[in-house]
Amino acid sequence: MRSHLCGEVNEALDGQTVTVCGWVNRARDLGGLIFIGLRDHAGVLQVVVEPDNEPAFAEAEKLRNEFCVRLSGKVRMRPESQWNADMPTGKVEVVADSVEIINAAAPLPLLMNDEDGEEVRLKYRFLDLRRPRLQRNLRLRSKLTRAIRNFLDDRDFVDAETPILTRATPEGARDYLVPSRVHPGSFFALPQSPQLFKQILMMAGLDRYYQIARCFRDEDLRADRQPEFTQLDMEMAFVEEADVQGVAENLIRKVFSEVLDVELPDPFPRMTYAEAMRRYGSDKPDLRIDLELVTICEHVRHVEFKVFSGPANDPASRVAALRVPGGAELTRKQIDGYADFVGRYGAKGLAWMKVNDAAAGLEGVQSPVAKFLDEQAVTGILNDTGAQNGDILFFGAGEKVTVSTFLGALRLQVARDLDLVGEGWKPLWVVDFPMFEYDTEDERYYALHHPFTAPAVHDGDALKADPVNALSRAYDMVLNGSEIGGGSIRIHDPKLQQAAFDVLGIDETEAKERFGFLLEALKYGCPPHGGIAFGIDRIAALMAGEDSIREVIAFPKTANASCLMTGAPAAVEAEQLQELQLKLGSSE
Amino acid sequence: MRSHLCGEVNEALDGQTVTVCGWVNRARDLGGLIFIGLRDHAGVLQVVVEPDNEPAFAEAEKLRNEFCVRLSGKVRMRPESQWNADMPTGKVEVVADSVEIINAAAPLPLLMNDEDGEEVRLKYRFLDLRRPRLQRNLRLRSKLTRAIRNFLDDRDFVDAETPILTRATPEGARDYLVPSRVHPGSFFALPQSPQLFKQILMMAGLDRYYQIARCFRDEDLRADRQPEFTQLDMEMAFVEEADVQGVAENLIRKVFSEVLDVELPDPFPRMTYAEAMRRYGSDKPDLRIDLELVTICEHVRHVEFKVFSGPANDPASRVAALRVPGGAELTRKQIDGYADFVGRYGAKGLAWMKVNDAAAGLEGVQSPVAKFLDEQAVTGILNDTGAQNGDILFFGAGEKVTVSTFLGALRLQVARDLDLVGEGWKPLWVVDFPMFEYDTEDERYYALHHPFTAPAVHDGDALKADPVNALSRAYDMVLNGSEIGGGSIRIHDPKLQQAAFDVLGIDETEAKERFGFLLEALKYGCPPHGGIAFGIDRIAALMAGEDSIREVIAFPKTANASCLMTGAPAAVEAEQLQELQLKLGSSE
Repeated sequence: MRSHLCGEVNEALDGQTVTVCGWVNRARDLGGLIFIGLRDHAGVLQVVVEPDNEPAFAEAEKLRNEFCVRLSGKVRMRPESQWNADMPTGKVEVVADSVEIINAAAPLPLLMNDEDGEEVRLKYRFLDLRRPRLQRNLRLRSKLTRAIRNFLDDRDFVDAETPILTRATPEGARDYLVPSRVHPGSFFALPQSPQLFKQILMMAGLDRYYQIARCFRDEDLRADRQPEFTQLDMEMAFVEEADVQGVAENLIRKVFSEVLDVELPDPFPRMTYAEAMRRYGSDKPDLRIDLELVTICEHVRHVEFKVFSGPANDPASRVAALRVPGGAELTRKQIDGYADFVGRYGAKGLAWMKVNDAAAGLEGVQSPVAKFLDEQAVTGILNDTGAQNGDILFFGAGEKVTVSTFLGALRLQVARDLDLVGEGWKPLWVVDFPMFEYDTEDERYYALHHPFTAPAVHDGDALKADPVNALSRAYDMVLNGSEIGGGSIRIHDPKLQQAAFDVLGIDETEAKERFGFLLEALKYGCPPHGGIAFGIDRIAALMAGEDSIREVIAFPKTANASCLMTGAPAAVEAEQLQELQLKLGSSE
Repeated sequence: MRSHLCGEVNEALDGQTVTVCGWVNRARDLGGLIFIGLRDHAGVLQVVVEPDNEPAFAEAEKLRNEFCVRLSGKVRMRPESQWNADMPTGKVEVVADSVEIINAAAPLPLLMNDEDGEEVRLKYRFLDLRRPRLQRNLRLRSKLTRAIRNFLDDRDFVDAETPILTRATPEGARDYLVPSRVHPGSFFALPQSPQLFKQILMMAGLDRYYQIARCFRDEDLRADRQPEFTQLDMEMAFVEEADVQGVAENLIRKVFSEVLDVELPDPFPRMTYAEAMRRYGSDKPDLRIDLELVTICEHVRHVEFKVFSGPANDPASRVAALRVPGGAELTRKQIDGYADFVGRYGAKGLAWMKVNDAAAGLEGVQSPVAKFLDEQAVTGILNDTGAQNGDILFFGAGEKVTVSTFLGALRLQVARDLDLVGEGWKPLWVVDFPMFEYDTEDERYYALHHPFTAPAVHDGDALKADPVNALSRAYDMVLNGSEIGGGSIRIHDPKLQQAAFDVLGIDETEAKERFGFLLEALKYGCPPHGGIAFGIDRIAALMAGEDSIREVIAFPKTANASCLMTGAPAAVEAEQLQELQLKLGSSE
């Protein structure tokens, strides 16, 4: 139906006749000529319809935005004064021989630019997706998955599909359920990840597995989540951490090089969980930001100010400072805003200190808490934080994780507000995670990753003797402050698996009920294995420079898990429920 | 953990020390030495453990089948008399330095060979999959999808994901439903195919789309179906039949060449639906079988035998013969068996004629119906069917589709029984399908494909004037008697779409309710578009030489839609149902 894409028509085709198809980006009558900007995914092409071509001109007069048309005509150079250097088609135009309206478009319900609201964009996604930005995003995503697959295919990874209609998986979020008609009262669960299946595939001798897999979580959508999302899932047999990390790192380097022409460092830096929390107050530090949390306990142990000296003398607590260059210019109102902000992360207040003359010590600073400190404390703090004139220091004091977390959040927020986020791509590995988290309310341990993550110790008794200090063999890949991948070496020893369950308070009956088939498989010569999973939506969004993963998903759902275009979810026929032997309504 | 895969160790490594990991295929004590067959996905390697290596020997004595072990030792040539030419490792063996048991295996619940029953195989799929045949199948499937992706990626197709949690789709089978927690009483449907979404993507300007997509149908599983299956879904904008067929054909040729080193014909033969039914009694003829149905109406119009002459004189009926070379040797019992067989396809009986002396006409044949025929009829039949001495002819007479269908089924069955199925790969296109099927019981038309398939006529009034004779722009790709792909040019004209709905008795309200968003999208400059979908499971099974798609799916479900390994579907907690505001039990 066409000889060229719109975006392909350039000066090399001068004098040739082309036929192009696409959508009217704009049609204008200028000086008795009709100028059509015809758009397809490859670009926009200028077409001129002259009035002496009467049939073409008559058709062209009917054109409105987003009409689907087919045009034929001869390519000619534009006068040099009208060249548009921003477009590959910008030196030429096509003089229309024929104008064929394939399909008209009703008046548009949206502007088709960045001013459209999210609701109208999602309802009319078929129009929204025509925008060059969205076209670019979907194509970038396709290029990303292609680069991933090529890398893994070349390294003997087997692309294997695991079931969508399956049993509850161990991630611990809420499952989507699918009632079975053949087995009334029974339900399939949609997988939160292929975790158990990929481990089974290692036990089945597949050796190296990958899948770009759809995963499902029925959670209240906070932040930037979707009910269904896509992950690159990988697993390898007969490996240790370095093997998996090596492949994963090479993969991500290759993908960034191929898709974005960006060279990431080799190797990626590695940081322990403990260090990441101490220096950045986060297990996914954004290393584009030069700010760090500095522990100042030693300088405030002796001061009368109990808010500082108390935690400074308690091994479970921490006093830390965050230096913000140029922050002395922050207004009182802005500082109060930050105090409210850290309050949401559990801070009881936000002490600060503006540095007017660093060399002058206590005399040179301005701070509501200065009167509670002494020269020695202030000098020590200024020295250790490297504070300069014009900086501000924010302080946190209290329970370790709380302090690190709220100062870590503050670090990100302030850096964004003051334009302190650097350019470029900063990947790293975070390693040596704790194996368990102790929940003081529930009085029990939870797995920080999942119950199949191997501990650093190989001995079940050692694990049970000191769970609070146990480290796991898990690792996260972090890029620019986003956790883009996470994985671990898995437990392959049935006894060690039982020890991990013991710490988690999962008895044999529960273990069998929830993960019976995995435990059964562990009995028959399970190989050592480990893997990783990457969030494809997030990586695509990062690469596309989009804040939201919705911009790299063709048909995303809203924050309340509905699709505005199709109207899903929707009511169903009574007959369908009858077949499933289900009734609507709460059971009291 | 290893220096080589087991299957990689060959004479090139003679004298070198290797470390290998894998599973014990067999361990035997022979003449005081222990011989271990160690298996990984790459092959089986012979390892010898000598008694003077006491620690290794002690470990080796514990080995049982399927233990997971790690072995180190030196490669040496076997004596030439012990070479095994069937194995890449067959000229060498490894003399073990060390034997490390990574994980023991409990006594095996299955034989791990073709004698295992389906039930035990699916329950212990992690062991079943270790078999070389299954390993080969999963790897072949991965190679197949890779070849498909490479072909399409190179041709500007965009790999785009469409939702799994969505609305009912128009295929007409039963949907799997997913209750929404956020919107109680509403349900998502799992897609039977991405049909509507891929059309939307064309309206959204994506131009060329593909996806290897999971699809779901809650049907009673007859034959070789699965509740979830995988299809290669493709769609192109601004195209006609030849464009889609060209890409699809080139794709399949490339894939067979890359994966199996098989060269398929170029171009594929094309056959109309009418011709396929007439000559082969099937819309997916297996062209490896040389047998054809031959219409013999003209020879039996005049005979007294009403069973033949009635249908021969009725334009809606047919009298046809199927010649089976060498079939005169069939026993009466075998023939009775075939009569029963065609009965299942609606035949009221099965007339036959053995050919003893073709040149002798009526005198030379043996048939229960011969006495009702005359010389002219028999000679005509023998001539037109090309019958030879020793052949048998089977006859069908009655309503056209019934006769074609049962003779077509008989053709396949007899060919299998008598070893008349040729070798090799016989693809073809079947085209010019009817647009609608009239259901005499429901007194209404049904779409032979789906309601968005374009008719051959472009005019809605013409379509509505003669629906029974309307042909569609649909096409099926058939390979060796399996429909491996099917597609069509879609309707892009809103008025023609309404005309199709009118014939199908879908009024505006129903159309809006079921496909509202697609109809809405049609209003805004829809481009001409069409596509095709291929059944990946079926193609993989054909390529692997497997009769059942279950052999090329890692974790298939049984015929009653359950997974014997995980026990899905399963009961759920009352609390989960409460959250979904659902109750179990029939509503009367």
